[in-house]
Amino acid sequence: MPVSASLLLQKRQRGEEFSASEMRWFVDSCVEMRPEVLGPEQASALLMAMSLSESNGGLTTQETVYMAQAIADSGAKVQLPDDEPSVSLYSGVGDKTSLIVVPVCASCGIKVPKISDRGFIGGIVDKLECIPGFRVKMPEQDFIQIVEEVNAAIVAPFPDIVPADEPLRRIRELLYISENLPLMAASVVGKKLAGGTSSFLFDVKTGSGTALADVNAAVSFAQKLVAAARGTERSASAFVTSMHQPLGYAIGSYLELVECLQILNGQHTRTGNLRDISFLLSAQVLLQAGKCSTLEEGYNMAVESITSGRAMESFRKMVEAQGGDLEFIAKALEPGPSPYTVERRIEVRVEPGDLEHIESELPVDSTIDDATRIVGIDTIVLGELSKKLGAFRSVASDNIDFGSGIELQRSLSEAVHPGDILCTLYTNNARTSDADLCKAARKAFSFERGPVSAQPLIFAFIDGEGGVTNL
Amino acid sequence: MPVSASLLLQKRQRGEEFSASEMRWFVDSCVEMRPEVLGPEQASALLMAMSLSESNGGLTTQETVYMAQAIADSGAKVQLPDDEPSVSLYSGVGDKTSLIVVPVCASCGIKVPKISDRGFIGGIVDKLECIPGFRVKMPEQDFIQIVEEVNAAIVAPFPDIVPADEPLRRIRELLYISENLPLMAASVVGKKLAGGTSSFLFDVKTGSGTALADVNAAVSFAQKLVAAARGTERSASAFVTSMHQPLGYAIGSYLELVECLQILNGQHTRTGNLRDISFLLSAQVLLQAGKCSTLEEGYNMAVESITSGRAMESFRKMVEAQGGDLEFIAKALEPGPSPYTVERRIEVRVEPGDLEHIESELPVDSTIDDATRIVGIDTIVLGELSKKLGAFRSVASDNIDFGSGIELQRSLSEAVHPGDILCTLYTNNARTSDADLCKAARKAFSFERGPVSAQPLIFAFIDGEGGVTNL
Repeated sequence: MPVSASLLLQKRQRGEEFSASEMRWFVDSCVEMRPEVLGPEQASALLMAMSLSESNGGLTTQETVYMAQAIADSGAKVQLPDDEPSVSLYSGVGDKTSLIVVPVCASCGIKVPKISDRGFIGGIVDKLECIPGFRVKMPEQDFIQIVEEVNAAIVAPFPDIVPADEPLRRIRELLYISENLPLMAASVVGKKLAGGTSSFLFDVKTGSGTALADVNAAVSFAQKLVAAARGTERSASAFVTSMHQPLGYAIGSYLELVECLQILNGQHTRTGNLRDISFLLSAQVLLQAGKCSTLEEGYNMAVESITSGRAMESFRKMVEAQGGDLEFIAKALEPGPSPYTVERRIEVRVEPGDLEHIESELPVDSTIDDATRIVGIDTIVLGELSKKLGAFRSVASDNIDFGSGIELQRSLSEAVHPGDILCTLYTNNARTSDADLCKAARKAFSFERGPVSAQPLIFAFIDGEGGVTNL
Repeated sequence: MPVSASLLLQKRQRGEEFSASEMRWFVDSCVEMRPEVLGPEQASALLMAMSLSESNGGLTTQETVYMAQAIADSGAKVQLPDDEPSVSLYSGVGDKTSLIVVPVCASCGIKVPKISDRGFIGGIVDKLECIPGFRVKMPEQDFIQIVEEVNAAIVAPFPDIVPADEPLRRIRELLYISENLPLMAASVVGKKLAGGTSSFLFDVKTGSGTALADVNAAVSFAQKLVAAARGTERSASAFVTSMHQPLGYAIGSYLELVECLQILNGQHTRTGNLRDISFLLSAQVLLQAGKCSTLEEGYNMAVESITSGRAMESFRKMVEAQGGDLEFIAKALEPGPSPYTVERRIEVRVEPGDLEHIESELPVDSTIDDATRIVGIDTIVLGELSKKLGAFRSVASDNIDFGSGIELQRSLSEAVHPGDILCTLYTNNARTSDADLCKAARKAFSFERGPVSAQPLIFAFIDGEGGVTNL
């Protein structure tokens, strides 16, 4: 029976699964969305039915594989030579870590091409674009050649790959199912498949304000990603990592670039967590590519790539190959004024009122002592503030202001006193007063008295067979 | 929480039921279908989710009630005075019976207003329109006044009632869920509610080629209709009746009108089944309206209304009140040429070849004898033929040719011989040859040798409490 809108709608209504060819017809038909073949109402109805829980006839694991494959096959695919291991890293929200993992792994002899969506608020591609001359758009052939030569390249999506992803994304948005886990997994894996690497590592972030606020949901999503990748015969694994605390000290394109360069340069920055997680991800990439036999060995290789300067050298080679200014990179590591100076620099300090609720609970003769600590730094609040500052996009058409952003001067569990600087804001936004920006920034911090238990950075690992290790 | 597209889509995705106010918002929003409130993709997605089986999150019985009520409330409603019982008859496919039931019950003192969709192929309104002057469109106030005066009126839908029905119907068609039972039930009951009667009788037809091909599906649909009506505090019951054999001998507007007039006139026509079922439905209407205490008593009242001439008198009063020509009615009962003469009149006869398969199975020395009988008359085949003849619409824009149609000269289980006339075709269609039309007509008949068991006319009755009696 030939596939048609009628057939698919009726199958779905009866709660029946789609075959590979039926899913392919659906995905391909969404690209053109012609009413006489499959109209937007029909595509929406089908996607709605697929978005339900599996017990209510939603997407099965096998269908997720079919959809990922169909999304990948809807357009051109990057054809990497398959004689050497290549690994692609996916990072859920922001992908600062890639700026470290990619050169570390490239320097260890693995091909780590990265095609990165700009995402909504801003992504790795936006951070790299603050390097003068750095090209994130190029013909696929140039991309492949750079990967061949220097093992690494980071670019924006090519216009002719995964053409089905955008129409599906648009319908999901319209139906409020953007965060439906199986559909998200099919989209992520579909794009990775089109990227042409033989292996994937997924870094799934869990944190408040996302579909993955709950660790269990994040683990479930990570499992779906690995399962979908396995179903398409790619090796894959996933970490579920925390967004409950900021990674590193910097937020904003240039500030983050500098922070990553410092780590690649072997400097010890304020917080160890960005470095720690980047090394862990690098170790897993090295393990998946067969460059080491244990995670520990991979971790040591990553550390060594930094101390030897090879990781920085790989980064410089990639920047050079993509047309970026190496002089700019060198200067970014030197003290001195930022090339992206901003009009306003605002120090956000602990105000006595911030600690009032703690004081009020203390015995009458106590005072705020050393034991009052930062127990929470809300990344959602900092993200919203970054939009105000110009560092993130509020709407898709916004330009990102490279120099703006936030530098955190205090980390989780550090002791604070009134007057301490919590963070510094950089912005060209003249509309909001210092006081209002400070107030917004201080809302991100919460304080409590007494010892603070360390918050986990990594929650779980999903191995290539789908097995979950809670960490 | 205010109702919104987002809320409803997310509830449905979680498999949660809608409240009355949520269903009302959905139905009302479908009338305007504004993308900033509820766009066509979103409405389609919601209707798709509602069309699934109840175990997969589809419409529940309570939601069917809410939807019916919301459809009724989406526009104006007919306001009948509530001091006297009023009953509305719903008939699934074609509604020849209404032409008899309405005057019979009106003559027994019950208000039987009928608002009838033209349906796709043609409906009761089309049949009545062959009476010169008969108005099926009029202001609601006139309709109510006629019902007040003569107890009966049969009209086409008013433009301002159930405005939500059409957009919902359009989406259902687009999604191939036109025949989804709960959505169909909500539509039928919604329209009945807007019609303003205090009681409903549903005549659900089961037969090949419909959503209700299976008796069990028809019973299930009838139960849904009664349950939805009960949920809106109307008294209701339903019969499941057969479409496996033609009802009466005539197909086509004028031919059917004449047939019904003959029955109202007390004449015994070729087949008893139209008369039988009309009396049964009338009896149930009388029982529901409290005019009798048993079905048998109601049946006798119906028979008496015919023999006394009161039913015919009620029909004439209704025709007069709706502007129809009474002289035309009188003439239709007299022998003589039809006022709607057609160019072609074709007699369809049993050909020797039709009985060949029976002959071939007979012992060598046998011949076709009296025991070869009609064992099937396919109503679907006759329906398709009627479109060719001009009696039914093929597309919604077709005009119906009042004089065209089919007169059956033989009924189910009658003995036949080669050369016997099976039926007579009337048409103005000059495109198809006599031979081709005869061939098409003969396909409707099937023959077997030996005794034929009577085929049931009525399969089940669903009482006001939803109890099913298989008949």
